[in-house]
Amino acid sequence: MNYPIISRVLGRVMGLEAVLMVPSMITALYYGEPLTCYVATAAIAIVLAILLNLPKVKQNDMYAREGFVSVALAWVLISAVGALPFVFSGEIPSYVDAFFEIVSGFTTTGATILTDVEAMSKGLLLWRSLSHWIGGMGVLVFIMAVLPLSEDRSMHIMRAEVPGPIVGKLVPRVRLSSAITYLMYIALTIVLVILLCAGGMPFFDSINHAMATAGTGGFSVKQLSIGYYDSAYIDIVTSIFMLLFGVNFSIYFLLLMKKFRPALLDNEFLAYFGIAIGVSVLIALDIIDEYGNFWTAMRYSLFQVSSLMTTTGFATADFTLWPAFSKSLLIIVMLIGASAGSTGGGIKVSRIIIFFRTARQEIGKMLNPRRTASVRMNGRPLSTQTIRNTLVFISLYFLITFVLVVIVSLDGYDFETTFASVVSCMSNVGPGLGPAGPMGSFDIFSDLSKVLLSFGMLIGRLEIFPILILFSPATWRKR
Amino acid sequence: MNYPIISRVLGRVMGLEAVLMVPSMITALYYGEPLTCYVATAAIAIVLAILLNLPKVKQNDMYAREGFVSVALAWVLISAVGALPFVFSGEIPSYVDAFFEIVSGFTTTGATILTDVEAMSKGLLLWRSLSHWIGGMGVLVFIMAVLPLSEDRSMHIMRAEVPGPIVGKLVPRVRLSSAITYLMYIALTIVLVILLCAGGMPFFDSINHAMATAGTGGFSVKQLSIGYYDSAYIDIVTSIFMLLFGVNFSIYFLLLMKKFRPALLDNEFLAYFGIAIGVSVLIALDIIDEYGNFWTAMRYSLFQVSSLMTTTGFATADFTLWPAFSKSLLIIVMLIGASAGSTGGGIKVSRIIIFFRTARQEIGKMLNPRRTASVRMNGRPLSTQTIRNTLVFISLYFLITFVLVVIVSLDGYDFETTFASVVSCMSNVGPGLGPAGPMGSFDIFSDLSKVLLSFGMLIGRLEIFPILILFSPATWRKR
Repeated sequence: MNYPIISRVLGRVMGLEAVLMVPSMITALYYGEPLTCYVATAAIAIVLAILLNLPKVKQNDMYAREGFVSVALAWVLISAVGALPFVFSGEIPSYVDAFFEIVSGFTTTGATILTDVEAMSKGLLLWRSLSHWIGGMGVLVFIMAVLPLSEDRSMHIMRAEVPGPIVGKLVPRVRLSSAITYLMYIALTIVLVILLCAGGMPFFDSINHAMATAGTGGFSVKQLSIGYYDSAYIDIVTSIFMLLFGVNFSIYFLLLMKKFRPALLDNEFLAYFGIAIGVSVLIALDIIDEYGNFWTAMRYSLFQVSSLMTTTGFATADFTLWPAFSKSLLIIVMLIGASAGSTGGGIKVSRIIIFFRTARQEIGKMLNPRRTASVRMNGRPLSTQTIRNTLVFISLYFLITFVLVVIVSLDGYDFETTFASVVSCMSNVGPGLGPAGPMGSFDIFSDLSKVLLSFGMLIGRLEIFPILILFSPATWRKR
Repeated sequence: MNYPIISRVLGRVMGLEAVLMVPSMITALYYGEPLTCYVATAAIAIVLAILLNLPKVKQNDMYAREGFVSVALAWVLISAVGALPFVFSGEIPSYVDAFFEIVSGFTTTGATILTDVEAMSKGLLLWRSLSHWIGGMGVLVFIMAVLPLSEDRSMHIMRAEVPGPIVGKLVPRVRLSSAITYLMYIALTIVLVILLCAGGMPFFDSINHAMATAGTGGFSVKQLSIGYYDSAYIDIVTSIFMLLFGVNFSIYFLLLMKKFRPALLDNEFLAYFGIAIGVSVLIALDIIDEYGNFWTAMRYSLFQVSSLMTTTGFATADFTLWPAFSKSLLIIVMLIGASAGSTGGGIKVSRIIIFFRTARQEIGKMLNPRRTASVRMNGRPLSTQTIRNTLVFISLYFLITFVLVVIVSLDGYDFETTFASVVSCMSNVGPGLGPAGPMGSFDIFSDLSKVLLSFGMLIGRLEIFPILILFSPATWRKR
């Protein structure tokens, strides 16, 4: 293991975190709030950055092992330090709670332990939203876009941090890829801020909700989430943008390059919108009695489905009170999740497609054992490695979910609450069902559950393997 | 597709079903109950047997396709006709209910729609128990043990009907293998009848409970299941025999051949007992307050874990009232299930082992992409085909579970009840949680749910693929 190079990467992450304190400081200054909690955190981050930069890099080699370990440690460290402003300010006195809250932020989950979000100071609200925005596209992808790293090194980091079964680059150079992705991300976020302001949402709220939407996070500055504004315009704009941020960003790049056919006929793109609209219609039909007519039901159904499928987690209705059929469908879209290469979480639509095609091929092979056929995605055959990795991923996803359900059920809540909360954290959605639902709080869980759910969120965001690799003895064995 | 040969197989199944009416007729005669329902069913089965034997077999070829289709159709047909005695006798007037009940019997699930089992006539109670006993070891395996079939043909049928990721034969000849398996099965069942009688259980009850234990079915002749006898001796004997019937029968063959080392060091055998005992201890510690001391808690915990892990489904306690942690663990062991090549259901311990080893190897491959290593079971490397099939199986298992949960939730029961009932049917356990728990009934569900859950039981018992193949258009396409 090349420790100095991992230390160097972590040092940069701490440097970034110090810089990330600046927007909150400005906000605090503007609203006349105390600055100490941000200044102290930035100081600690800077000291850590200097210390982590001390070990001398003798070899520049970075292999898969170092890539996974760097990414896993980077996310744990940025969260561990990122929790401090909440603790220093006294607004979330318990460190476990603060850690849960910021992990929920960076992983773009949006589950909160707060019971009164509107009582928080503005600077801390912005810090929560900013963590969504940075975490959505990737902490290390951001660093790569700004600071130079060798191509080899970047690729290993990309593979560990960017979600999806196949890691694609937009352009041959990784660094340029990261930069282009972030530029498209910034552009879409700015458009959303403008559209929200145009709908009458105050500027501060718009900035926060735009960042939370972009990262598919889900933290809101209002207790009633987007439902607070009670505006069809804001609901529809937010629904559309949540769906847009759940699309693979390489689709937008293809559109910019005027390659419309491959972009719009992309298998995952079509399946993603197909599922979102299909499930929205089914739920709208199920809740039609509560909302009077189909179109009103559709407004609420589409918003909730977009929110949970893209794993954002905003709410305009308390879906905990919806009928059992709708709730089961919502749990399913939480599991499916958004597209690969987007800011969303979950298993990812492309993995579901690969799984279905592999299952179909498996049946064909059982009927005719000598048959050789390949599983294809967008017309191109997938490697055996990708297929096996996808199947292992899906099985591990369910396995880890069930293990977490067993331990969290020690808290004694009913199965629906426990199961939905674990799925919600693993898929980086945010709200669960029951007392941890959209109008409730994760405050109800014990410290043990909060720590485990925090790791569940990290496992979900980094797509299982980096965290497993971090805890695997084989990783630390000398070669 | 070679239709005449499939028809020939189905004809034999109908012949078997006519013969299977005899024990119930004798029972009915003994207890002075009406015989017409069995006679009428036997007559229908014989007519069907004659009709199905009419098509002339031109080619003797039987390929994988015909094997899967024969097995799937055989199970649907034997259930469709097997439901008739309940309907003809008027004791279960609804055909859907009767179909659910007998599918639950043959698939060794043991979920019942009855609300007062003790009101049933003795002949029908025996028919329910007998369906467990035949279904446990396999309808077609039984036929193969008695009637000659070509080796090729038998192998394709074995592969479709015998549970587990790898189909093993005890001896090179398939027919002899089936016969030996059934002899061991009969011997163990007789020993259990004797032990239960020795504990003071009436002879009729002992026969029924022994057949239900052997098939890991779970139908009881008492409303309170085994709990009715309130005897520590009967509890412990039943716990041990449930565990014994959940063991791969090839282990017993190895023991008979005096090959003790490979038998007792078998990977699945050790993992199976390890999980059963480990989970029992965890649950005993969780419920210790309710039962006063560890050993009493252990008696109830071990019984329930043995019952649910082997997918039998007997109960001596209403575990629906146990704490959330215990209930979550019970759902997990229901999913894991028993050993391959046993009469039990679920995913099977060997598949879980293969999955864990594949996941570990996958992590190794991610750390060192050039590494080549194989997944081993009992020291022997597994084929890529077996590994992929296992992973597809596990993923499909969860997928089908979730689809069923969504549809069954249309009935409006809480998530715990719906989820546990679906898992219980898919894994061929029997009781679920809540109103469909061990002291409840599946009577609460709608006809749509009952039909879907019946197919869930068949999907679980035949391990997914035969039923999917039956409904796959590719199966029926001309070559």
